[in-house]
Amino acid sequence: MTLHLQSMETRLSVHSDDHFMKLALREAQKAYDQGEVPVGAVVVYNNQVIAKAHNQVEMLTDVTAHAEILAITAAANHLGAKFLDECALYVSLEPCPMCAGAIRHARFDRLIYGAGDEKQGFMNYGKAMIHPKTKLEFGILHDQCKHILQSFFAERRSVNG
Amino acid sequence: MTLHLQSMETRLSVHSDDHFMKLALREAQKAYDQGEVPVGAVVVYNNQVIAKAHNQVEMLTDVTAHAEILAITAAANHLGAKFLDECALYVSLEPCPMCAGAIRHARFDRLIYGAGDEKQGFMNYGKAMIHPKTKLEFGILHDQCKHILQSFFAERRSVNG
Repeated sequence: MTLHLQSMETRLSVHSDDHFMKLALREAQKAYDQGEVPVGAVVVYNNQVIAKAHNQVEMLTDVTAHAEILAITAAANHLGAKFLDECALYVSLEPCPMCAGAIRHARFDRLIYGAGDEKQGFMNYGKAMIHPKTKLEFGILHDQCKHILQSFFAERRSVNG
Repeated sequence: MTLHLQSMETRLSVHSDDHFMKLALREAQKAYDQGEVPVGAVVVYNNQVIAKAHNQVEMLTDVTAHAEILAITAAANHLGAKFLDECALYVSLEPCPMCAGAIRHARFDRLIYGAGDEKQGFMNYGKAMIHPKTKLEFGILHDQCKHILQSFFAERRSVNG
């Protein structure tokens, strides 16, 4: 019986990460539909989504309007607290150094990203960029997270020449 | 006569950096007066200030509300352009990695900061964090920029016992 329960919990936990990353992907799709680089993010607290956002750099004409920055601002506003140390941040793409810095300041409990970003990802500077207490995971729904970006840039290239 | 003009230009140019850093310091003082870590920033375009901001992390309950982020958003809004490649950013303190990432995205022509931040400054990761085209200068009004921070933290310590 105990074994059975543990198994259930494991499945629920795995399901949750997939579930929340799917919501981040849905946000990325909104960005795609608006001609923005398709990256989405959700903030989860007590297993509930308290903030979701997609990249809005073009829409807002603001280089700081990455999905993560907007989601952090919205989550802090929702909780009335600047530190998000009991929250998890799901992002479809590996954050850039700007966002990793913000994630560090927010002291997230967990950071989970889907696709890696070899060129511009913060991991080029090492995991030490984020807070030492933040648990890091990546590769959740990796293929879908990568695919939406590849489709976007392939479409861009075909439109531009 | 030529020499005289060159000398004038040099003085004007030096005056300008001091002048704009003084405005950044004035912003830092506003933060100080509101109980925020005293950091201020101004964005200059064509020798005119187009945006100024101070740290508002506590006021906005938002870890992303550093002076530089707020100034970048305001400057882009003013110009109607996301890239600030003809602008200079004056900051009283060495930017953190989050802000350095934003400064990179904005492609500033120049970044000028006053005091260094050995613990949390982006230079711990090297100058490569900002855009290769961004000209970097620091130490402008260094003592005043450092003094306001030291006063703030000394006062905090005495209040907190």
